[in-house]
Amino acid sequence: MNQDYIKPDNWSIIEEGFDVNRVKSSESLFSLGNGAMGQRANFEEQYSGPTFQGSYIAGVYYPDKTRVGWWKNGYPEYFAKVLNAPNWIGINVIVNGEPLDLYTCKSVNHFRRELNMQEGWLSRSFTAILKNGLEVNVSAKRFLSLDLDELGAIQYKIIPTNGDAEITFQPYLDSGITNEDTNWDDKFWDTSSIVQNDCQAFIEAKTMKTDFYTCTYMESSFSINAKPITINPEVQAANNKVVYNYKGLIKQNQVFAIHKFGGYVVDSNHDKSELITVAKQNLEVAKEKGFDQLLEEQKASWAKIWEMADITIDGDVKAQQGIRFNIFQLNQTYLGKDARLNIGPKGFTGEKYGGSTYWDTEAYCIPFYMATKDQNVARTLLEYRYHHLDKAIENAEKLGFKNGAALYPMVTMNGEECHNEWEITFEEIHRNGAIAFAIFNYYRYTGDYSFIPEKGLEVLIGIARFWQQRATFSTNKNQYMILGVTGPNEYENNVNNNWYTNYLAQWCIEYALENISQVKKEYPSDYARIMDKVKLSDSELKDWKSVSDNMYYPYSEKHDIFLQQDGFLDKELITVSDLDKSQRPINQKWSWDRILRSPYIKQADVLQGFYFFEDQFDDETLERHFDFYEPFTVHESSLSPCVHSIQAAKLDRMDQAYTFYLRTSRLDLDDYNHEVHEGLHITSMAGTWMSIVEGFGGMRVSDNKLSFTTKIPEQWSAYSFKVNFRGKILKVNVSQAETNFELEANEAMELLVNNKLITIAPNNLVTV
Amino acid sequence: MNQDYIKPDNWSIIEEGFDVNRVKSSESLFSLGNGAMGQRANFEEQYSGPTFQGSYIAGVYYPDKTRVGWWKNGYPEYFAKVLNAPNWIGINVIVNGEPLDLYTCKSVNHFRRELNMQEGWLSRSFTAILKNGLEVNVSAKRFLSLDLDELGAIQYKIIPTNGDAEITFQPYLDSGITNEDTNWDDKFWDTSSIVQNDCQAFIEAKTMKTDFYTCTYMESSFSINAKPITINPEVQAANNKVVYNYKGLIKQNQVFAIHKFGGYVVDSNHDKSELITVAKQNLEVAKEKGFDQLLEEQKASWAKIWEMADITIDGDVKAQQGIRFNIFQLNQTYLGKDARLNIGPKGFTGEKYGGSTYWDTEAYCIPFYMATKDQNVARTLLEYRYHHLDKAIENAEKLGFKNGAALYPMVTMNGEECHNEWEITFEEIHRNGAIAFAIFNYYRYTGDYSFIPEKGLEVLIGIARFWQQRATFSTNKNQYMILGVTGPNEYENNVNNNWYTNYLAQWCIEYALENISQVKKEYPSDYARIMDKVKLSDSELKDWKSVSDNMYYPYSEKHDIFLQQDGFLDKELITVSDLDKSQRPINQKWSWDRILRSPYIKQADVLQGFYFFEDQFDDETLERHFDFYEPFTVHESSLSPCVHSIQAAKLDRMDQAYTFYLRTSRLDLDDYNHEVHEGLHITSMAGTWMSIVEGFGGMRVSDNKLSFTTKIPEQWSAYSFKVNFRGKILKVNVSQAETNFELEANEAMELLVNNKLITIAPNNLVTV
Repeated sequence: MNQDYIKPDNWSIIEEGFDVNRVKSSESLFSLGNGAMGQRANFEEQYSGPTFQGSYIAGVYYPDKTRVGWWKNGYPEYFAKVLNAPNWIGINVIVNGEPLDLYTCKSVNHFRRELNMQEGWLSRSFTAILKNGLEVNVSAKRFLSLDLDELGAIQYKIIPTNGDAEITFQPYLDSGITNEDTNWDDKFWDTSSIVQNDCQAFIEAKTMKTDFYTCTYMESSFSINAKPITINPEVQAANNKVVYNYKGLIKQNQVFAIHKFGGYVVDSNHDKSELITVAKQNLEVAKEKGFDQLLEEQKASWAKIWEMADITIDGDVKAQQGIRFNIFQLNQTYLGKDARLNIGPKGFTGEKYGGSTYWDTEAYCIPFYMATKDQNVARTLLEYRYHHLDKAIENAEKLGFKNGAALYPMVTMNGEECHNEWEITFEEIHRNGAIAFAIFNYYRYTGDYSFIPEKGLEVLIGIARFWQQRATFSTNKNQYMILGVTGPNEYENNVNNNWYTNYLAQWCIEYALENISQVKKEYPSDYARIMDKVKLSDSELKDWKSVSDNMYYPYSEKHDIFLQQDGFLDKELITVSDLDKSQRPINQKWSWDRILRSPYIKQADVLQGFYFFEDQFDDETLERHFDFYEPFTVHESSLSPCVHSIQAAKLDRMDQAYTFYLRTSRLDLDDYNHEVHEGLHITSMAGTWMSIVEGFGGMRVSDNKLSFTTKIPEQWSAYSFKVNFRGKILKVNVSQAETNFELEANEAMELLVNNKLITIAPNNLVTV
Repeated sequence: MNQDYIKPDNWSIIEEGFDVNRVKSSESLFSLGNGAMGQRANFEEQYSGPTFQGSYIAGVYYPDKTRVGWWKNGYPEYFAKVLNAPNWIGINVIVNGEPLDLYTCKSVNHFRRELNMQEGWLSRSFTAILKNGLEVNVSAKRFLSLDLDELGAIQYKIIPTNGDAEITFQPYLDSGITNEDTNWDDKFWDTSSIVQNDCQAFIEAKTMKTDFYTCTYMESSFSINAKPITINPEVQAANNKVVYNYKGLIKQNQVFAIHKFGGYVVDSNHDKSELITVAKQNLEVAKEKGFDQLLEEQKASWAKIWEMADITIDGDVKAQQGIRFNIFQLNQTYLGKDARLNIGPKGFTGEKYGGSTYWDTEAYCIPFYMATKDQNVARTLLEYRYHHLDKAIENAEKLGFKNGAALYPMVTMNGEECHNEWEITFEEIHRNGAIAFAIFNYYRYTGDYSFIPEKGLEVLIGIARFWQQRATFSTNKNQYMILGVTGPNEYENNVNNNWYTNYLAQWCIEYALENISQVKKEYPSDYARIMDKVKLSDSELKDWKSVSDNMYYPYSEKHDIFLQQDGFLDKELITVSDLDKSQRPINQKWSWDRILRSPYIKQADVLQGFYFFEDQFDDETLERHFDFYEPFTVHESSLSPCVHSIQAAKLDRMDQAYTFYLRTSRLDLDDYNHEVHEGLHITSMAGTWMSIVEGFGGMRVSDNKLSFTTKIPEQWSAYSFKVNFRGKILKVNVSQAETNFELEANEAMELLVNNKLITIAPNNLVTV
């Protein structure tokens, strides 16, 4: 663990005391987002110490020219990159001519930050003694409105406590920002106009190349001792920046306050000629409601989210804080309102990795959104990939595939590939399977088949075509093989016959065939439309069948297990527990070649297959594979502990399941990977939710019913969660003694509990 | 073939006619070098069209900060890069106020370039009509002195042919140059002083970071109609550049000539405070001798090289031109005078790849230098690696090896790694074996064992240690394996048990063990010194033995061949001849993953092993492997055709051998790979020499004697070559009818010809 400065608390993330070495980490941990925009917890006022400034608009990206050491054929020339957006939160503060700057002032006392997850706001307070001797007391609060998602609000109060002071607030907008993560130091933003009036300012800027037109805006108002005042500002506008100077002569112990409203409007939601008009309307609404009412609405909106998504844990405040932090950040990142968006691996908390969509969405995030929101949210996520199908086909064509074969990118923002290691971009192709699996999973959970004839089948066909073409017939083994891949375990590159990939490929083809038949039978007009488009011949279907019927799987008779890949047993099979601790984490201590020839597994690989296709293997088989592979697993991916936690719980290894749970739920809060300053691990947070619901709660869908086998770690006295299953809300309360199921619905619900069928009446409770 | 504008000629490379699209290619092809410095064939006068300016000083490099897309642990932070050096050849020419510039003038006629390989000079002549209507006739000649290797000389004559003209020669020095191949646009040179007097100028500049202090210098003299004249110059010195303006009022048809001497002195050869003094001395010598005498000496020096190194081919002028071009460029690049230097893959003709030393030196170049020069040259090349042993041990330590294990870098300038693809840097480890093989090869050819106790044994021990530690014991197969490598065929990455690598590793260990015993017995004091240093225990030797005695080799019973690597037969085995031509070259047409999972071979891999260890396999075995692997070989490496040519000749497949020969010998002249504008392929040129001497000539060393099985392509009427074998010079003349052996020596020589023992008396001739 890297850090433990976050105070345990059921509902808030709290930091006390100012430490310059924690600023970047806290900027990540206290980030705010509302699904449409977000920002790191940068200070409003000037800060000259180490900081990572970041403000982001959902869906606004920049195609940065690829940078690699050695170019490989097939790399896309440009990769979409998460883009640092113009800054609207800035309020510099000048006290008797000296800028307030926590890095340079004489001392900072009583520093406290709170991210209130229940109500959705961030606050900060401190006392600073400036170099000029003046002491000021500052408290700031801000939030990004969930309801008006182009709007944010800041309240910033300052009190001179040891004398009168001339205090100037300098609220500003700045579009002269840069990305930390830029390949060629390109300019990303082109400012076209700065418009200002007495109290409002607007910067119109568009992204280079992608031409996203944006308007960043602000308006400020002032009070002394809560009494509104009017101050005539001086305004400077130059160099992509507009700064207002509001000077106040403040008596000792008077409270000088600024309320600043601001945010972004973007031409993806409005006509680009109307951006300033819309921004003005937003400001009108904001002023009419005022800061306090907006904050009340914010609390109400978050209460609505928590009502459905909350998980309670009794008797373990760190575990409770961890799961709420995960649920909160997921909801800050993605709310399912916009089909063009997805769940970025760092959300609105950093730039790293580029792109916003990984296979994480399909493999890890969809179950969370399916169960805690309306099922349309999950459907919207599936539609996102449907909209990228043409690009996935193009992507496959670039790599030499044909005839409508689709290879979805490893990472994307707009359907194009955003990754540039050949061993990932070209070879980590199992990602394609996760997209098909998500379609299956959506139907299994929601019972909504309509997505498949409408959109899903085309995706399934493109994916099946890819697998058929990607397989190689080995005359040597008289079977189909998949050569040269990287599995989920990225500590192996360019291996032959990764079992997970082969299994998934075969499943994808069969699932596509199955759905072609079903759509043909049940949705003949959709079938006709699709066939007209994709032009599937009988001989092509025969080719698919030939691959899926004759797939090769590496297997060890001696161990009675599927091998992660050909040759796995030739490695030096020393378990992680026998590895010297000084060698961990191997991704920091070992050179890449050493990692590659070792048996160590970064995240579930064969076991990921057992997680997806649980029904196809009995518990003894799972146990044999878990016992073989987990001891070689170093869990150096944020996505690793959750799957193992679920499987350990299933195998009744509750200690192990609990350890994995803590690791996934407090990964960022406790900074297990020493990198939280770069941003949070958003997508693995959905894995934390799964660890509780599917792991301890044992929730599955079986034959159109929810099924539970609940367990509880001995460290907890009770826990509860809610799921929305096909329009019915089921609350599950698990204590050491018993489990209650509560139903909010108009009709009864059948459940399987420990494999026994139970019926709950509407709005009733059953105890097991 | 990309181009065919080079006129066939026995001794010269000739270009006629001016074509802006050929300028960069010709700049490469007509490059000059003298082992200590070199330069692309850039024009002396201004040229504003597409050009690649390059001037290089042997051994002067820059450690450029590594650039990769995704960093892998173990990459060195800096990679040594071939460095573009200050320009001393520049002479701008102003005619009636208009700069002479072949890109912008009205027309260029009678353009002709000649690289005279026999005499070692470059000339250029043309008639240009300027925009102002004046016609000038220009002829320029330049060379880099072989004897005074810090000195170059230029003669530049201009005749106004349709009127009188005011002509200004502007000879200059410029240290404000940049590299095309720079990762971060760093400044590479720091100019400390510009010193000038009436006719001489000196720029002292040092390289950033590596601190090579250099002085670039020049002096010019003038004549009209060959009558020396004195002109008082105007001088401008600023911005890292010093320019002299020599104005002449030249009558129609008068010859205005400048002779410019210049070059570099470097603190690796002189005290850094003496650089200008030494430069002045060089200029004194140059002036005393004058251009014409220096040119005569140049011819004599090249004659001496050709006397020993020439290969004649009768009846095939393109083949003749090809082999001489190869021999000429090798001698321009490396003459074996300086143990700190090596044979860069692009010599002094380009920047690409960085570093100057690849395994090419040991695997391809040493035989050429051993046979055509004093054996000390080859010994000097071996010493180069001995001097880098500590760095090779450090390099291995960075990758987790210990106890003196040495891994030589894939590419280097100073002993540090200069490559940054993990699949090459970390995994193409067979390079280590080539270094041991070169020691063996040197002893086999020269009979000089002394290198081994003095220096070689330490290298062999470091290498053997590496292999022992790099091998993995597979309990599964009960043998040692080498996992995760890239073989010579770089179209496979991260494979297990590349046969060539495993075979070489086992051989390296055995060869080290053999030499430890021999040195122990025959050089006890060297043995004691070495053992004191390397601390080899009996148990470590036992570990070595255990690896070399139990090495695993992938093998196919069905085909009775060693497999290139585990799983090779699982590929889709379509031969190159069955591959659609539109797919070639695959390194331009296919994405990297497709190449990797294909069976296609970039250059000899298994067959490289058969080349090195020919004696250990009978001809039937070679034939079986050649017939299996060559059909999958695309020869997309410059190093590929030569080995195949030699083996084809051995197998009596003369047509194939001849095709491969042409491909290697005219690779750059005919630009097979469409990249000659970036520079020449210097190291593979030694392979061309081997194709004749070892291929057609069938020369081997067997039991301390030279052995020949001569053959001749039907396209040739005769060919001849000379070799220096242990101080005796043997000339071999092969015609369609017979083979003559001529001996220049004081003692008789025993030879094997077609396996029969023959004795030649001193200075005698034997016909077979």
